[in-house]
Amino acid sequence: MDRLTKLREAIGGPHEAAAAEARRHLDALTKPPGSLGRLEELAVRLVALTGRAPCVASPVIFTLAADHGVVAEGVSAYPQSVTAQMVENFLRGGAAVNVLARAAGARVVVADFGMATSLGAPSGLVVRRVAAGTANLALGPAMTLAQAVEAIAAGAALAEEAIAAGADLLGTGEMGIGNTTAASAITAAITGAAAADVTGRGTGVDDAGHRRKIAVVERALRVNAPDPGDGLAVLARLGGFEIAGLVGVMLAAAAHRVPVALDGFIAGAAALVAATLAPAARHAMFASHRSAEPGHAVALRHLGLEPYLSLDLRLGEGTGAALFIPLALAAAAVYGEMATFKSAGVDGPA
Amino acid sequence: MDRLTKLREAIGGPHEAAAAEARRHLDALTKPPGSLGRLEELAVRLVALTGRAPCVASPVIFTLAADHGVVAEGVSAYPQSVTAQMVENFLRGGAAVNVLARAAGARVVVADFGMATSLGAPSGLVVRRVAAGTANLALGPAMTLAQAVEAIAAGAALAEEAIAAGADLLGTGEMGIGNTTAASAITAAITGAAAADVTGRGTGVDDAGHRRKIAVVERALRVNAPDPGDGLAVLARLGGFEIAGLVGVMLAAAAHRVPVALDGFIAGAAALVAATLAPAARHAMFASHRSAEPGHAVALRHLGLEPYLSLDLRLGEGTGAALFIPLALAAAAVYGEMATFKSAGVDGPA
Repeated sequence: MDRLTKLREAIGGPHEAAAAEARRHLDALTKPPGSLGRLEELAVRLVALTGRAPCVASPVIFTLAADHGVVAEGVSAYPQSVTAQMVENFLRGGAAVNVLARAAGARVVVADFGMATSLGAPSGLVVRRVAAGTANLALGPAMTLAQAVEAIAAGAALAEEAIAAGADLLGTGEMGIGNTTAASAITAAITGAAAADVTGRGTGVDDAGHRRKIAVVERALRVNAPDPGDGLAVLARLGGFEIAGLVGVMLAAAAHRVPVALDGFIAGAAALVAATLAPAARHAMFASHRSAEPGHAVALRHLGLEPYLSLDLRLGEGTGAALFIPLALAAAAVYGEMATFKSAGVDGPA
Repeated sequence: MDRLTKLREAIGGPHEAAAAEARRHLDALTKPPGSLGRLEELAVRLVALTGRAPCVASPVIFTLAADHGVVAEGVSAYPQSVTAQMVENFLRGGAAVNVLARAAGARVVVADFGMATSLGAPSGLVVRRVAAGTANLALGPAMTLAQAVEAIAAGAALAEEAIAAGADLLGTGEMGIGNTTAASAITAAITGAAAADVTGRGTGVDDAGHRRKIAVVERALRVNAPDPGDGLAVLARLGGFEIAGLVGVMLAAAAHRVPVALDGFIAGAAALVAATLAPAARHAMFASHRSAEPGHAVALRHLGLEPYLSLDLRLGEGTGAALFIPLALAAAAVYGEMATFKSAGVDGPA
């Protein structure tokens, strides 16, 4: 628990004075005040977090993979084998997150946090296996508290390695057949929303599968009955190893004042856990997009985060985080490169 | 009129067979079908327009500037001098559009289509002056039909030069103090919406200025009473030279089957004129974002276009078009670089 306590204690609030100075700077640039809308808000948040002009030179996306015992309940349209097959696809560079990260100039870190089948240690795969998949959360806790802490610590360590190597924007991604069920359960537990309001079709289950999935989430909440204020217990009882790893990435990002771009619904569930463990961590979180999964909007509202993109994505992997990077680059460019009214000799309002 | 007729006649509908093939290709890629949401829709639209895999290697943004006689009515928060001063800022690379275009790898073409004061011919400025600003549209036609055709032809010629030089995505931008008043009048005339519903605060007029601006738009519609089905008459009576130039850029893009990213409200008004002149031109148009100006949503609805970004931008210049480029690049990358289920050996739905 020591490692986690240290991380939580290192997380502080925004630099308010730097944010005010950032707003003054943006208003001096050659544009009507506020006319770049959320791009300006994004720039101010980046300054408030880091205390300096926004810079996105070395973004890294963490795509963490793990398997879920709850697939035994028939909650996914795809077989569990797809988790490992997609990880192999990530390692070959052929998946959506690879392609979008490349387009955005980001590095992708692919890590096995506990798939059902080990791939061994192929080149490019970071191996941080907690176990060969979680237990079935519909029947009892998905993992032990010790496993949850181990996965958080492993995720935090990965983030800290990247930050030490110069990463200035982290992105969260994941792969794990069955993990929208875990994310729905976590979101319901922490926000108090009904299972039916936060449980979607994931990779695309049919109507019967959707009803079954809602019932599984309801059962998981009944069986596990976690205290919504105890983030670690919620995570251990209803989560997944990759979700726990993402909690660690988020906490480490916040502790080091490095922005972390949340991907979609699974990342949103991890963010709920992270913000329960350390409320100030929200200042480091940037909601890249609003997923088509219904629970995502619920999670973002609870976190007080407004997404930047709304493209009906529901893929995960880190794809939304990758698409956010050009916006962060744009905000940094506006902040750092535009002329001021004074320097450009442009008249202000009449 | 010949030039315009030729352009209009060259504009055709989408390649439906290519679009169907594009959908099949996207469904074969390693992701649940449709899970990349609007990025997939964007890719399909690009294929339907061009008949080939999407490619964005050489984007060009046209930032056309002109002045507006209607500023005599006190409709803008900024003095008319700002149009030329901002054009000088564009030429030095210090404006928002320069910075965002640079971040997106786009070239910016800056053109004087009729500012009140000539800057001469400084390096980097394309001079296509139709006149030293339009007449006051609150009192009568902003320009003659011949001037409207001249400006459209000049815009089309600029676009065709760029396309001949390899441009594969065009963006539209503008600068002209007073031009949100012209855009409001055009939008009301073509869509039938009330002036009050399509007239916003532009660069930021106060309440009294906003009421005055709505009254000016109402007066312009009464005095000019254009036939909503006659795009050229609407443009000549209520438009601006830069708006007419953008109509030309859009028609040329559509005629050559090159995608054109619409910027904000002013570009939306130009698009309404272009689509009135040639309804099939809409297939070449991509609404980059939904502006904070209330008339923009009305224009996009009329055009049947759904914006890709919603960032509360209200700057113009081509900034929204620049922010759209990374999305187009992302759609092209997904389409061209992702592995298929078959090639990656990933199982399909169970």
